[in-house]
Amino acid sequence: MSAPKKVVLAYSGGLDTSIILKWLQTEYGCEVVTFTADLGQGEELEPARKKAEMLGIKPENIYIEDVREEFVRDFVFPMFRANALYEGEYLLGTSIARPLISKRLVEIAAETGADAVSHGATGKGNDQVRFELAAYALNPEITVIAPWREWDLSSRTKLLEFAEQHQIPIAKDKRGEAPFSVDANLLHTSSEGKVLEDPAEAAPDYVYQRTVNPEDAPDTPEIITIGFEKGDAVSINGEAMSPATILTALNDYGRKHGIGRLDFVENRFVGMKSRGVYETPGGTILLQAHRGIEQITLDSGAGHLKDSIMPRYAELIYNGFWYSPEREMLQALIDKSQEHVTGTVTLKLYKGSVFVVARDSEHSLYSEAHVTFEEDAGAYNQEDAAGFIQLNALRLKLLATRDRRLKG
Amino acid sequence: MSAPKKVVLAYSGGLDTSIILKWLQTEYGCEVVTFTADLGQGEELEPARKKAEMLGIKPENIYIEDVREEFVRDFVFPMFRANALYEGEYLLGTSIARPLISKRLVEIAAETGADAVSHGATGKGNDQVRFELAAYALNPEITVIAPWREWDLSSRTKLLEFAEQHQIPIAKDKRGEAPFSVDANLLHTSSEGKVLEDPAEAAPDYVYQRTVNPEDAPDTPEIITIGFEKGDAVSINGEAMSPATILTALNDYGRKHGIGRLDFVENRFVGMKSRGVYETPGGTILLQAHRGIEQITLDSGAGHLKDSIMPRYAELIYNGFWYSPEREMLQALIDKSQEHVTGTVTLKLYKGSVFVVARDSEHSLYSEAHVTFEEDAGAYNQEDAAGFIQLNALRLKLLATRDRRLKG
Amino acid sequence: MSAPKKVVLAYSGGLDTSIILKWLQTEYGCEVVTFTADLGQGEELEPARKKAEMLGIKPENIYIEDVREEFVRDFVFPMFRANALYEGEYLLGTSIARPLISKRLVEIAAETGADAVSHGATGKGNDQVRFELAAYALNPEITVIAPWREWDLSSRTKLLEFAEQHQIPIAKDKRGEAPFSVDANLLHTSSEGKVLEDPAEAAPDYVYQRTVNPEDAPDTPEIITIGFEKGDAVSINGEAMSPATILTALNDYGRKHGIGRLDFVENRFVGMKSRGVYETPGGTILLQAHRGIEQITLDSGAGHLKDSIMPRYAELIYNGFWYSPEREMLQALIDKSQEHVTGTVTLKLYKGSVFVVARDSEHSLYSEAHVTFEEDAGAYNQEDAAGFIQLNALRLKLLATRDRRLKG
Amino acid sequence: MSAPKKVVLAYSGGLDTSIILKWLQTEYGCEVVTFTADLGQGEELEPARKKAEMLGIKPENIYIEDVREEFVRDFVFPMFRANALYEGEYLLGTSIARPLISKRLVEIAAETGADAVSHGATGKGNDQVRFELAAYALNPEITVIAPWREWDLSSRTKLLEFAEQHQIPIAKDKRGEAPFSVDANLLHTSSEGKVLEDPAEAAPDYVYQRTVNPEDAPDTPEIITIGFEKGDAVSINGEAMSPATILTALNDYGRKHGIGRLDFVENRFVGMKSRGVYETPGGTILLQAHRGIEQITLDSGAGHLKDSIMPRYAELIYNGFWYSPEREMLQALIDKSQEHVTGTVTLKLYKGSVFVVARDSEHSLYSEAHVTFEEDAGAYNQEDAAGFIQLNALRLKLLATRDRRLKG
Repeated sequence: MSAPKKVVLAYSGGLDTSIILKWLQTEYGCEVVTFTADLGQGEELEPARKKAEMLGIKPENIYIEDVREEFVRDFVFPMFRANALYEGEYLLGTSIARPLISKRLVEIAAETGADAVSHGATGKGNDQVRFELAAYALNPEITVIAPWREWDLSSRTKLLEFAEQHQIPIAKDKRGEAPFSVDANLLHTSSEGKVLEDPAEAAPDYVYQRTVNPEDAPDTPEIITIGFEKGDAVSINGEAMSPATILTALNDYGRKHGIGRLDFVENRFVGMKSRGVYETPGGTILLQAHRGIEQITLDSGAGHLKDSIMPRYAELIYNGFWYSPEREMLQALIDKSQEHVTGTVTLKLYKGSVFVVARDSEHSLYSEAHVTFEEDAGAYNQEDAAGFIQLNALRLKLLATRDRRLKG
Repeated sequence: MSAPKKVVLAYSGGLDTSIILKWLQTEYGCEVVTFTADLGQGEELEPARKKAEMLGIKPENIYIEDVREEFVRDFVFPMFRANALYEGEYLLGTSIARPLISKRLVEIAAETGADAVSHGATGKGNDQVRFELAAYALNPEITVIAPWREWDLSSRTKLLEFAEQHQIPIAKDKRGEAPFSVDANLLHTSSEGKVLEDPAEAAPDYVYQRTVNPEDAPDTPEIITIGFEKGDAVSINGEAMSPATILTALNDYGRKHGIGRLDFVENRFVGMKSRGVYETPGGTILLQAHRGIEQITLDSGAGHLKDSIMPRYAELIYNGFWYSPEREMLQALIDKSQEHVTGTVTLKLYKGSVFVVARDSEHSLYSEAHVTFEEDAGAYNQEDAAGFIQLNALRLKLLATRDRRLKG
Repeated sequence: MSAPKKVVLAYSGGLDTSIILKWLQTEYGCEVVTFTADLGQGEELEPARKKAEMLGIKPENIYIEDVREEFVRDFVFPMFRANALYEGEYLLGTSIARPLISKRLVEIAAETGADAVSHGATGKGNDQVRFELAAYALNPEITVIAPWREWDLSSRTKLLEFAEQHQIPIAKDKRGEAPFSVDANLLHTSSEGKVLEDPAEAAPDYVYQRTVNPEDAPDTPEIITIGFEKGDAVSINGEAMSPATILTALNDYGRKHGIGRLDFVENRFVGMKSRGVYETPGGTILLQAHRGIEQITLDSGAGHLKDSIMPRYAELIYNGFWYSPEREMLQALIDKSQEHVTGTVTLKLYKGSVFVVARDSEHSLYSEAHVTFEEDAGAYNQEDAAGFIQLNALRLKLLATRDRRLKG
Repeated sequence: MSAPKKVVLAYSGGLDTSIILKWLQTEYGCEVVTFTADLGQGEELEPARKKAEMLGIKPENIYIEDVREEFVRDFVFPMFRANALYEGEYLLGTSIARPLISKRLVEIAAETGADAVSHGATGKGNDQVRFELAAYALNPEITVIAPWREWDLSSRTKLLEFAEQHQIPIAKDKRGEAPFSVDANLLHTSSEGKVLEDPAEAAPDYVYQRTVNPEDAPDTPEIITIGFEKGDAVSINGEAMSPATILTALNDYGRKHGIGRLDFVENRFVGMKSRGVYETPGGTILLQAHRGIEQITLDSGAGHLKDSIMPRYAELIYNGFWYSPEREMLQALIDKSQEHVTGTVTLKLYKGSVFVVARDSEHSLYSEAHVTFEEDAGAYNQEDAAGFIQLNALRLKLLATRDRRLKG
């Protein structure tokens, strides 16, 4: 590849991506376009604009966008239709945000005539893979610059030196090293590294930033009702809301009740295990609620098929293959299943837990007439079960007969 | 089939199976052998002996056995190695007990020369299927009598009339109808029917019998450490225990902290949905603990394969196919994965929740040297990630190139 | 259920379904509507009309329809998009025809005000299940009458007596028993029973009716080219054809070259093994051709996902679950994969074999620039492979390191 | 890593690996140990010894071994128990040989105190991955040298220059470039590259080296019978043979009858598509035979489970993960299924085709008593099918009832 001339950088406004910005200018001598997205990480974006300007980015090269609705509508919600959990537990809060960022990077590159994109993910993690696979899938000609894999700023000291050398302002609290690393968006906050690196040591309390400690949560449970249409949450307690508004509201409920904490050791795509602490307050509520509404509206054949492909679907998202044919094929399968996943679920929130206590739907497949312990007026003929069992048993009997014959 | 001459009945000593006992004698005119098992359901067994004697069963035909260790060692623990959950949530407490009961029924039939077995499950549920598939798989010649599918005692009134007519004592509290139906063993207690039949109505508090309400649980968390060897729990807080002892102890912890409650609508194998309330106190703790120890000791390839076949494994157990070649094949796969699932997990129990807070193992695959944010002394070469990403991206680039060419 | 008043019968015009027709009239006393479909079985349909009239069916109650195009377009082709094979070998020729017949039975019942449908499948086979599951899925209120499971005409002698008694004409060649049973449609001919019942005995030559013996096929290979669009065959040797026309033409090629014979022992859904001889001349060619075009147009992620769900898809069709949510979900996944399965495949047909010899497509993902042994002008950087291998190896190294440490 | 001091090279004795040998000596200045294996590729091994000596390898550093029995017994046969096919067609002949070679390389390294291994696979293909993953899985400390990814001998001319410069003899027929590249072992011969690089062009006849053209095969079919024990072939026509002897004999049958040719475009693990011509004469017969014996001895539950995991198993072998926990887990599952896969299969071989014509076994699950069209003496109760269908239909009815209710 020839040297890139113009690069779109995923820019947070923080120290690390500011250093990257300057490094791209000095190392590659190329024009830099910054993209700063509001994914619900809870930080002001305007300071990022000021900082970019201060670092010499032309105003027309500064992109700052609120993508929260797109994030929830087109990424989070489709994923939740699948009840996706990576390795049985992780709600994929970081994984699902990366493809959206790459999509905008590539789009902005097209708009601004840039031939490269750049990100601040290290060479050890999953995010580099997610950013880059998405970028290449959307533009096979794009160049991706991953400074952490390239430069020699391999220690905190060298980074700070580089910053000072290039007049990048360093906030006082950034002089020392952070005790762990954080990523946040509307779906979750993840923490990893440093004080969390020994999985045999409990995580310190101060790692949790997004939720109250369950022990400090209210002593009284709270009951909420979530409405669904075709698999997506559309209302809370009867009030219709947009996707991002719903997730924001659920985050508030979850934060208050200490819901969605996870201390987890996972397998990275790049081959190593890592330990993280995740806080997914609203998502944890949403997952339970979605399962609750599926319980009465989803057929068993559909549900079991969904369950069987879910681990693969979650793995694809975790590994960065959102923009792959197989993720899209699985999405088609999942979406097809959600046509009747409509109704309401009532949940109890209490000190770290979410319980489904009731579900109701016009689309329910639950038939009290069939299941009742009372007289069922012929809805179900118990004698059918005898034939059902006999034919299910037939092959088992033939197996047992063979065993007897061979031993015999 | 010719009429059975001698039948082994799964006998609880309660009213319903006492009526069945008598009905088998009168309807089939056959000799009855009773089998009463202590599976940890929490009831005395000697009253069952007395009652059987009173109903005319010969002493040598009364089998009363404590099978708790066998239950946990040979059924519960193998299942937990798989992290089995039916439909994402249910820990299969009833399902896993049925094959053991059938196995003993068939063995006792062989010992006593009986040509039939009988059980008290209805024609609407899963248990009839589980009992009978297991029985046929173990003895293809056996006859199974399922009175609930055959007799005309289709109402409570008729049952009581039959009981009175045959001098079967009726406890006072059995005169009225129970507000729901219960099954219990060392792993769980399930409740269903009657007051639970409307899934849009929250379950009344009195349904829960096995755990305290989380709101009434201690205000202080409790920390415990579970030791594992090759996937099975072997100790609590450093004290070695037998399988049933461990599960009993975990049940005590779970009961105290309100852990393991589930209000659930599930799909029965016979085709209808039903709503149940499950309490699996110790099992819920055990599942989290097992996942915790697997996090550091199980390779990702092994773990993802296990995750992908788990739904099928759980479905097989739920549907009654414990004694099937495919369940045994999956068990071989699962057991193979557990060779290094050895170590300790520390958990926090608090008001309905179980959190893994730490895990430790000589068999750990976690490598701090690789994952560290610090200088890693060459353990991991970040530049490798560039090649890894390029080759993973290659097919995505070829796809994108095609799309461009066709649109072009 | 109350006694049916009007029944739509799947009527072939042959002796067996004529007996059923009369039996429905006499046993149920109900009005009979006949449905005779041309599925490409190779028999004239007008004699069925005459015979139905002779048996007293009102002209407006006689439905005779050519459904070949619908059969291939809406059933065969969607199935072939999946490369469906049951138990590794069987092309599902019988299974795929049943849902279409049931669909028309239920539709005609709605048109004619009938409350029941009936078919001539026995109680031992798969077809009863396929007919009935489809019927119930399309009309949950319909009654299905399966005479072979109900009547006492359990021997050939009794059937002939019934026929004579009711003036049903018996063709001379039907007096004796056929040496095996046959089902045919545009996709295949199946033979089973009687002379085929011992799987240790080779099938007699006369069983094969649809294809020449490979030994008698032409000594010279024939080359044909099949065109595909979005996964479906659309032309042969450049000539555009309708779905049924293509399959008919491929059948001619296959018949001539002795292609598509299969002697097979399969597992029926009802629990037993059975041995059948299948001839699927055109379908066998079509499967190879479809695989051939997928080889260059389908991405590996898409293809491997398709391969992994194919056995389940095939099993669903075999077991009669065409009209089930899970089949439709899998179809959505499969159809999504076929958007670019467009191009041409050249095949060599010779004495029982089909070889793909070439494939070509505007939608090809094959990149000679990447794969070439020659200088590739930078299309592919071989050094990337080193990083790719290192990261794929990382977990294997960590496993090996653990093993060494423990053996210590 | 520090520079390797002693390296074990997979050495064929041909020009390419001779150049590598010399290059390792000159570039790395390290001692070279050669390993030349007889995997059934059909070449004399002694010339390799002479050539290694001539190139300065010490006699004690020359390893020449006949590993054919180990290859078939421990690699080919376990794989055939799974009926493994990559992407529906490819019998994995190259893939399955690589782990064995790596295993011996690593073992010889341990014996000789070598710290590195080396192979002659290029940076574009799968074999580099297979060699290296296996090596790292067996020795996490080993260094692997892949000269094709490192050196600058990027053209035929440069290679020949290097050879001449280092007095490596060049056979006259190696002066020009081969029109395609070949790999062979007892299981198969593969050809790829050069004249085969355009998948729209039919492969020239001269590419096929291992089988006669079907058109030139005998005009008379040949019938053979293969005996199996626990899933492995143990005899032909009643004569017991060792694994390698059986495969050799089947290769002779296959060669003679033109069996096992495949012209194929596949997806490489490294991300590109490639076109190959494979000849697997004996393996193609063996696969059909194994399927034939499974048809009567394998239960449907076991068989369907095997079928569903087969694509993943094949993919693992193709991608080089033979020595991975998940391959071993799947092998445990597969091997568990083969306990009764014992019996004989009779096949007809004719002009490129293999037909199963009969199978017989003491372990058969086929029950003529159940399947017969004749009176079955009560073996099977057709009325059971009614209940079986009703309960399988129940959820479909509930779905249809919902649809009707909503449409109202």
